[in-house]
Order: sequence, then C-alpha cells, then structure tokens
Amino acid sequence: MVTRKELADAVRVLSMDAVQQANSGHPGMPMGMADIAVALWKHHLKHNPANPKWADRDRFVLSNGHGSMLLYSLLHLTGYDLSIDDLKQFRQLHSKTPGHPEYGYAPGIETTTGPLGQGITNAVGMALAEKVLGKSFNRPGHDIVDHRTWVFLGDGCLMEGISHEACSLAGTWGLSKLTAFWDDNGISIDGDVEGWFTDDTPKRFEAYGWHVIRNVDGHDVDAVLKAIDAARAETGKPTLICCKTVIGMGAPNKQGGHNVHGAPLGATEIAAAREFLGWPHAPFEIPADIYAGWSARDSGNAAEADWTARFNAYRAAYPALADEFERRIGGKLPADWAAFAADVVAQIAAKGETLATRKASQNAIEAFAPKLPELLGGSADLASSNLTLWSGSKDANSAEGGNYVYYGVREFGMAAIMNGLYLHGGFKPYGATFLMFSEYARNALRMAALMKISPIFVFTHDSIGLGEDGPTHQPVEQVATLRLIPNMDTWRPCDTVESAVSWQAAIERNDGPSTLIFSRQNLPFIPRDAGQVAAIRRGGYVLRDADNARAVLIATGSEIELALKAQTALAGQGIPVRVVSMPSTSVFDRQGKDWIASVLPKALPRVAIEAGHPDGWRKYVGLDGAVVGLDHFGESAPAKVLFETFGFTVDNVVATVKSVL
Amino acid sequence: MVTRKELADAVRVLSMDAVQQANSGHPGMPMGMADIAVALWKHHLKHNPANPKWADRDRFVLSNGHGSMLLYSLLHLTGYDLSIDDLKQFRQLHSKTPGHPEYGYAPGIETTTGPLGQGITNAVGMALAEKVLGKSFNRPGHDIVDHRTWVFLGDGCLMEGISHEACSLAGTWGLSKLTAFWDDNGISIDGDVEGWFTDDTPKRFEAYGWHVIRNVDGHDVDAVLKAIDAARAETGKPTLICCKTVIGMGAPNKQGGHNVHGAPLGATEIAAAREFLGWPHAPFEIPADIYAGWSARDSGNAAEADWTARFNAYRAAYPALADEFERRIGGKLPADWAAFAADVVAQIAAKGETLATRKASQNAIEAFAPKLPELLGGSADLASSNLTLWSGSKDANSAEGGNYVYYGVREFGMAAIMNGLYLHGGFKPYGATFLMFSEYARNALRMAALMKISPIFVFTHDSIGLGEDGPTHQPVEQVATLRLIPNMDTWRPCDTVESAVSWQAAIERNDGPSTLIFSRQNLPFIPRDAGQVAAIRRGGYVLRDADNARAVLIATGSEIELALKAQTALAGQGIPVRVVSMPSTSVFDRQGKDWIASVLPKALPRVAIEAGHPDGWRKYVGLDGAVVGLDHFGESAPAKVLFETFGFTVDNVVATVKSVL
Repeated sequence: MVTRKELADAVRVLSMDAVQQANSGHPGMPMGMADIAVALWKHHLKHNPANPKWADRDRFVLSNGHGSMLLYSLLHLTGYDLSIDDLKQFRQLHSKTPGHPEYGYAPGIETTTGPLGQGITNAVGMALAEKVLGKSFNRPGHDIVDHRTWVFLGDGCLMEGISHEACSLAGTWGLSKLTAFWDDNGISIDGDVEGWFTDDTPKRFEAYGWHVIRNVDGHDVDAVLKAIDAARAETGKPTLICCKTVIGMGAPNKQGGHNVHGAPLGATEIAAAREFLGWPHAPFEIPADIYAGWSARDSGNAAEADWTARFNAYRAAYPALADEFERRIGGKLPADWAAFAADVVAQIAAKGETLATRKASQNAIEAFAPKLPELLGGSADLASSNLTLWSGSKDANSAEGGNYVYYGVREFGMAAIMNGLYLHGGFKPYGATFLMFSEYARNALRMAALMKISPIFVFTHDSIGLGEDGPTHQPVEQVATLRLIPNMDTWRPCDTVESAVSWQAAIERNDGPSTLIFSRQNLPFIPRDAGQVAAIRRGGYVLRDADNARAVLIATGSEIELALKAQTALAGQGIPVRVVSMPSTSVFDRQGKDWIASVLPKALPRVAIEAGHPDGWRKYVGLDGAVVGLDHFGESAPAKVLFETFGFTVDNVVATVKSVL
Repeated sequence: MVTRKELADAVRVLSMDAVQQANSGHPGMPMGMADIAVALWKHHLKHNPANPKWADRDRFVLSNGHGSMLLYSLLHLTGYDLSIDDLKQFRQLHSKTPGHPEYGYAPGIETTTGPLGQGITNAVGMALAEKVLGKSFNRPGHDIVDHRTWVFLGDGCLMEGISHEACSLAGTWGLSKLTAFWDDNGISIDGDVEGWFTDDTPKRFEAYGWHVIRNVDGHDVDAVLKAIDAARAETGKPTLICCKTVIGMGAPNKQGGHNVHGAPLGATEIAAAREFLGWPHAPFEIPADIYAGWSARDSGNAAEADWTARFNAYRAAYPALADEFERRIGGKLPADWAAFAADVVAQIAAKGETLATRKASQNAIEAFAPKLPELLGGSADLASSNLTLWSGSKDANSAEGGNYVYYGVREFGMAAIMNGLYLHGGFKPYGATFLMFSEYARNALRMAALMKISPIFVFTHDSIGLGEDGPTHQPVEQVATLRLIPNMDTWRPCDTVESAVSWQAAIERNDGPSTLIFSRQNLPFIPRDAGQVAAIRRGGYVLRDADNARAVLIATGSEIELALKAQTALAGQGIPVRVVSMPSTSVFDRQGKDWIASVLPKALPRVAIEAGHPDGWRKYVGLDGAVVGLDHFGESAPAKVLFETFGFTVDNVVATVKSVL
C-alpha cells in the first residue's frame, strides 16, 4: 500500500527532475503544494482522465501557473494522455508540456495560466458558468450540472489587483462550489513577503463574503481533507483554504527560501532531496504501485458512467432540453442559424436607420439574442452607456438565473471571467466597457487570443467622438493596439448593417476572440447592394466606386461618412476616387491576394481616414500614401468641435488626397 | 456670518449650473460630497491658492475625477487663479476646466483623474514621496517636509483592482499622513450597488492595516471634522473615513438615484434645487460673503510664510541640504550632469562588454545613481530578474528611508504610484517588470504620457528571447503598442552603450515618460565612433554603412546582431547594404526631415528586423520594403530554438533583402 507521502513525493521528484532536465522552470511550488494535491486529486476531484472534456467534470485551475510541473505530474500520474516522455520534453518546442500550462496543449489543462491573478479569475467565471448553466438545465431530480471548481493560488495572485475584482464578485455571487487553496509559503521572488505583502488575507476574504478556513497545515493531508469537507458543507459562500506550506518542501538545503522558486535545484540538491525524501528511483521512473495509487482511470470512468446514466434519464424526461444541452456544451450554433442571421441582417439593412453604432449594436443583440440563450451579456457598470442590455436580459445571479452579468467597475475581472465562462462551455459571453478601459483589461484579451477562445469584447465610445469627458476617456491609439494582438479580430463598423454583420461574425467565430468597437454618436446609414452586404464579412470592400478612380480612400466607422463626403467633393473637382470600408483589418488580411488586389489596386495611391493613431494604416497606404489620423491626445470639448479642430474635415481630406496624386 | 451649509451649497450650485451650461457632466458627486469638502478645505487643507506649487502644501486628489466640478468650484472659491468665466467654460475646448481634472490645465490640480482607481494610487505615491523625502531632508527641529495627502474616492475606485494593490501597499508602508474619504452613496452607474458591490469595505481596509472610521454622516460637517481629527491623531496607519452620503444631495427629486450621477439635472430640477436649498442667486453669481467665507488667500499666504521662515532657518543650519532640496523639488539635474553623463557613457563604451541589456541597464543605474539621489527605483517582485537593484539601493520603507521600493506583484499599482511619486516632486522614479506585464500597467503609462510627466518604466525579457516560460510571457506586440502611446518615448537598445544612452535620455527627459526595453539574453557589444555614440540620442542612426548600398536594414535591440551578420553575408554575395540602428522610433521621428533622409535615403528599399509585431515598421519600409518580424504568438522552448524556428536567421534576412531589391 503506497503512502500519501509517496504519492506526494512522486509529484515532487517528477517536478524537480523535469525542471532540472529542462534547465529551466519552477520547482518550489510543486514541491510545496504536493500534499495539498494529494488531498484534492486523490480524494475529491471529480474527473475522468479518459475524457478530459466530460461536461460535468470538476474544473481545476492552477492560478500560480509557473508551478506547471505540479499539474503535468498529476495529469500523468492519474492517467491522462500525457506520457513520461511528454514530461521529459518539459519546456521544449512543440511539446505538450510548455513552461506554463497552455490550454489546448495537453489534455486536462482547463485554462492557460501564468499571468498572475487571471487563473483565479477564470475560475470565478467557470464557477459562475456552472451555477447559471445548472439553473437553466437542471430539473427536479435531475442535477445534470453539478460540479465544483478548485483553484490553487499563491501570494502573487493575491497581490494582483484582479484578485480583488474576481474574489469580490465571487463573494457577492455566493459561488459556493468554488474552493481556492492559498499556498501561504511567505515567499515571493524578491524574498520574504513581509516587506511588501502584509494583508490579513483571511480577513480580506471574509470582507468579500467568503468562507475562510485559517491555519491549515498544507503538509498534513488529513488537515487539508478536513478543510475540504468544510468547504463542501458550505452552501452559500465560496471557500478559501489557507494552507501554510514550505516552498520547495523536500529540498533539504533550499526549501523555505526564494532560491527554490524559479530555478533548477542543481544536481547536488536533487541528490540531497532524494536522500531526504527516501526516494531511491531514477529520474522519470515511477514504481508501478505509485502509479496504481494515483490512477483515476477506473474511478473516473465510473464517475462519468454514473453521470451518463443520469443524463440518459434526463434525456428520457426532457428530450429537447437534453439536445439543447449538448448543443450548448458542444459550442454549436442552432441548425437554422445561417438563414436566421441572414434574415436579421437583411431586415436591418431594409430599415436603413441612422443610429449611433452602440445603439445599432444593441439592436443587433436584440435581434440575435432570442435565438442564442448561450449569449451571456454584461458590462463593467456601463450598461446604459454601452447599451448591452436587451429586452430579454435578466440578472444571471438572480434566484432563477439569467443571461446578464453586472460586473461592477471591474474591466480586467470582467474580461478574465468571460474567458472562464467560455472555457467552461455552454456560453458565448459578451461584455462591455468604454474603449479606453480596454486597457485595464488588455492582458485578458490577449489571453483569449492566445487560447483561441471566442468571447466577444464590446467597446463603445470609440474616439474623440466621445466629446466632453476629455482625453482620459478619448481613445486615440486603442483601436490600433487592439489590431496588433495576434488572433484578435477587431471590428469598427460604420453603420447599422456593418454593426449587425460584425456581431454575426463574432458570434460565429470559434477560433479566437472578437472586439467590437462602437461609436457614441450617430452615424448615417449607408445603402449597399446584396453583394456589398455579403462583402462586409471580408473585412474590407469597395463601398462606393468611381470610374477611372485616381486614388483610394480607406476608412472605418465614423470616418466613412467623411470619406463619402470627400469623394463627392473630389468628384466635383474632377478627381474620381474609390471609397473602401475596412471594418476589420485582420479579416481583410486573411482574404488572399486576389481579393486584396481587387479592393486596393496596386497602382492607386491611398489615403486612410480614421480618428485614431495613424501608424497602423501605413501597412495599407505605404510611404507614398497618407493618413488622416490622430497621433496626439484629445481634448475635452463637444465632439463636433474636436473633429473639426483635429482635421477631420472634407477640406483636409480633399487636400490630403491631392497631395498624394 | 456665512453658514457651513451656504459654503457647501455654493459648491453644489456651481456644480449643477456648470454641468447644465455644458449640457454634459456629473453633478451627483459634487453635490453629495460638498459637506465633506467644507470640512476638509475650510478647516484642514494646508494650501496657498497664490502658490499652487508650494513644496510643503498638502496634496488633494479627487480620485472620483468625474466629479471635477467639485474641485473646480473649490479652487475658484478658495482663491486660485480660476475665474468664474473659467467655470462657465466647463468642458469647452482649451478651457482650464475640462471634463475631468487634467494636470497642467488649472492651478491646484495635482494629478489627472478619471480612470477609476488611479487617483487613490497616485495619492499613495504622493504620501510615500512625502515620507521618503522627509527622511532624506528633515533634521531635528527642522521638519521642512511635513504635509498630508487627502483623497476623495467613490465606489468605482474601490471596485477597481488597482485600489487593492495601492491600499495594500499603503497599509504595509504605514502611510499615516494619507487620509481617504469614501463617498459611500450606494449608487453606481448601473444603479444600486448591492447587486455587484457587497464588500465589507471597512473590514477590507482593516485587513490592509488601515485605520478605519466607520459610519460617518457625510452631510454632518462636525462629524467629518471629528473623523479628520482622529485621522490626524493616528501616526502609524493611513485612515479611511467612511462617509455615508446622498448622491446629488440638494436635487430634491433626483438625489439618491443613479440618474443624478452623470447627466445635467435639467432646468426644472435645477429650479427645484434652488428652492430646496434656499439659494436665490443666479447661475455663477456667488455673494461676496460666501467668497469671503471660502477664501484661503490670507490663511494660505500665512501658512506658506511660516514655512518659508522655517525653511530659511533650515537653510542657515544646513545650506547644502537646502540647496539640494530646492534642486530636487525643482526637478533640476546636478549642475555638472552633462559632463558626468558623457563620461559614464564613454567609460561604458571603452569597456566594450557583451552583456544582456538588462545587465547593461543595471550597470547604467550603478553608474548614474550615485549622482542622482532622486532616482527612486523598484520592481514588481522581479528585482533579481529586472536587475533594478544597484549597490546603493536601500528599502525606501526602512526606518531610515531609502531609494528602492519593493512593490510586490502589483504592476498597475507600481506604475500609478510612480506617477504619484513624480507628481509630488523631488523624485525621478523608475520601476520594472517583465515587458509582457506592461499590459497590466498600461493605462498608467498612458496617464504619465498624457500628464507630460517623466517617470521611467523599465521592462525586461523583451521578446521570444525570454525562452522557456513560453507565450504567456513572450512579448510579441508589446513594443509596437508602447510606441503608439502619444508622448511616450520607447527605447529598445542593442548593447551596453545604447542602454546607457537610453537611460541618460530617460533621466534627462522632463516632458513625458520613457519606457526602456531590455533583453534577457546576452547581446554583443558594437564598436562605434564618437559621432555614432552621439547619434544614439537621435533615436535612429547609421550603425554600419556600405559604399553604394542597395538597401537599408533597420533593426533594434537583439536583432542588431542579426542585421550585422546579414550585412556581412550580403556583402559576400556582392550586395552592399547599410545597417541602421533605431533604438527609439519616436525620438527618430522628431529629428526633422534632413536627419531622417540622411539615415533612410528615399531611393533605397528597406527591410526592418525586429522580434516583434511587424506592422509598426511599415511606417519606415512602406509597401515595397519588408519586415522580418513576428505576427503570431511565441512558444515555450530555448530562445535560440525559437529565433531559428521563427525566421530570425541570416539566411532568411538575406533572402528577404533580395526579395525587395
């Protein structure tokens, strides 16, 4: 019979050996949290290594993601498709075991972690998803959605501001199936944390409305198990289990100090650790009885089989709901979606309304959302400005559940929670703030792009058109910087039709996130033929052509109106120009040479117009073209005054075009 | 004798009338916090309206900056150079009274606020500055630095994650001269906060080690005064005064609801408010006795005169210290700085070391810092990775004071605290994290640029050269996006000499911030002649020319080595090319046409090489040139493997150059 200590030591030794082999990595956390992992993974975690995508599995998030070898060791030992050779490839190119856990690289990785604080925030999203999905689908006697979310986190996560945003919300929402284990080892990279981290963390979490279990010995598996029992017994609040640990436990000369955090132990200390732990086995050799002690294959198969039987009973009782559940969890759109969406766009085109695109966005949500219960909306305390509520919106945290999240003034938390909602499955989250405050959330947008997941980030008040609130709130460089995030599709539509199509594209996208950028102010409706409406999905297309055009005007969003007026003015001066609308540069760039050349003929000089930073447009206009843009901060004044003051006038565009002919 | 109510009502009425006149703005907060303002501004704030830059004034920060009319009213009424006509120009172009308080627009504005949570964080920096400066300059019997920092903040600031980072540090640092007034009105934009903000805020702040005064009636001036007395009596902790208020107090039909937050009251409600308050005066008419009741001109002059007398006594006792204090507060470099700095750079050039530029950065700090006690360093828990410590570093929060701040894992908090340290005066802060996590801090970098203040942001591990930690930690688009912030100078030096010069430029800059981007890995020293060393300050210059060059290679940082090797290889194939080093694109862009044309001759095709997002380089290479860059995420692997895998090879550069000839 293997002991708990042997189970934990297997994790310790695999971790220190893999870091040593890679000559890079973080042994301290895996060695320090190994006993907690035994308590959770051996005795509580509901999972099936043979099916990492089982819908009702518990979710486990390693928020202190630098300790990735802990998770890789656990996945390997419990029976996931992650071999010992995979562990030997730790931190090597195209391995399943990169330096931080990367979603999509190894089975059982629920989210990419490493950027501190975001893992716990993703987990809050996952726990919210479980709660809301359960309210939608569970029926008396049929709890088909009933799983827990477990998080490991360290001091770094707790220092990060986003932990405040996420954990405050988790408390407000009463996410009682969320349990976090705090690795309270008193050490961060700069040394003993007492010089920079003196929070009374238990008290802080009690202030958020959490159930807090203090002073648990993180190396006493029984103590941790007792705490987990208490967490499970709590039905109104999330639980924080405060585990006192020794970082690098098992490395006799280095444990408890910051040098064990982020560097290989070295051959001498590794030998000493083997002796200290009484571990006689060679690197990457795990005795069969320890594998057997860790394996979750049988228990996992049994757990999933039990759920499948219950789901079959649910299907017998509620066949339509069961189908819908599978559609939602599978991330599939309704079967008649394409025709439905085309009809929505056609109706909006037929109406021909002049609206602020944020209002056009709301109308698009109003049209699409009744068809898509997976749309889970929200705003960071700007619902009435972002216009993200629709007539069917209901607070997701109400007693009966719903489809709208009031995130409060927490942009970064919102975005990382949206990532967690999406990763859980069953939801297509959208959430909004002012475009300027995309900056507060920026790294969570990047994480969505890196994970190839597809939440929808809605940003309104997209330029100096915001007006009087002034330069702190007026985007200048924000659209340009969003366009630089790899795998992010950024849309800046110019009217109701482009707004609806950008929503449709974002809804249909399933390999990366979208940002939808909308105006505060009214923008005129632009008539288009059916071919042009279809061409919006290509990211850039000819909106108004001219015979024998001598130049191309490229514009987006609110500057389309200006481009069209300048086209008319130039025509009056005998200078025909083409107007191209380019709502999404990344989508346009993917269209292939022929489409690109047909929209932007090589021979014609180009002028881009956008009330934002000009530099990104050089990619399209080159050195011989020109950009009517804004390379400085805005000012506080009515929008109309600002556009005129900063050169967004027909006269200036006309003069600029003439300068490049 | 005017009553306190009349004083408060003057603020209320000016605020509601100015918002009405602008037809835009936020009346709710000024009307709700007017009584608190009477307590603080009438009875406690140490300031001199005739000299808003008096070194020992108290600092007042309106963290809920949307309530700007509160501050403008107070500045006007107490006697600053801000006229009633300025108030009438609220939110109009080029007025002193923009929508949010903008640093540099009106006297008495200590920092630009609006982006929530950053004001309180700036204030933490100001309070830290006061504490550290006092330890440097005060002498027994000569407390020439002895002032307080006062902050107004609302629910929004408290929900933002950055408030956690800042207030945790303020508690750890024991900033007892910092007092924050929480406008606890229970309302945010989406409505009653109980659906999304249920923190026990007093308990939360106690967990941070703050002195918390609960349940103060924010409309009872005596109660607020009593709380302020208690705050002043506390000498070990910052104080949070929790003020229950009614948002929009005085607007009889709208007060207490969210509709009063961010829109004009309207003529009807304004008339009702005048009646309700018993305020018979026309808009923008303030009776003389109320002006007299508010005026701080006499008391302010007296307070400053008292300090000046004490400073003169200090000067008599410590003449050199007094001179140094004035130099520091004036933001002036030492008189012999230019020669000193030139010597430092020359010595570094003479050494010719091959080092990681993060190590070159540390050497530059080591060389410059002994001359500059105003350099106040720090890192977000990555001192040993960022290499921001030097031999003279001492914890600023030690008993005797110092010059280094251990910020913990708090990137956004660090950056906004640095802004506060700079705004206070007396310090040139630098602070560091990994380049990736510049994203967590991004809006604080922008705020520094907007305010035209000059802290130094140090970002290391600047590309896939970071290696095994993988894509969550490998910058791709980050340098490109930093370059897009208006008024930000971003430097990515290629060796020890460029690193030292970029530090020198950042130290000397006084009209905007700098970001210094350094490599993890070693980069070879590049020999230069004196003219080339001088040319580094021009942002871009010819590093290795070639006779009859047929193309220009532009590179930065770690890719300079590759450019030089490609130049050699191309020369071997009979293709002479010029190599341009461009450590700072924004500095280069400011050099004027002649310099730019001399470095990048119009006729030559160009290839840019940078291990980062290519799009920004189109500005220099146009449509006919090429970029060897990276438009996708990185991977976890050793750095050398990644550079080769992703095309940063001589062969690829050579082929790319040939493709554009």
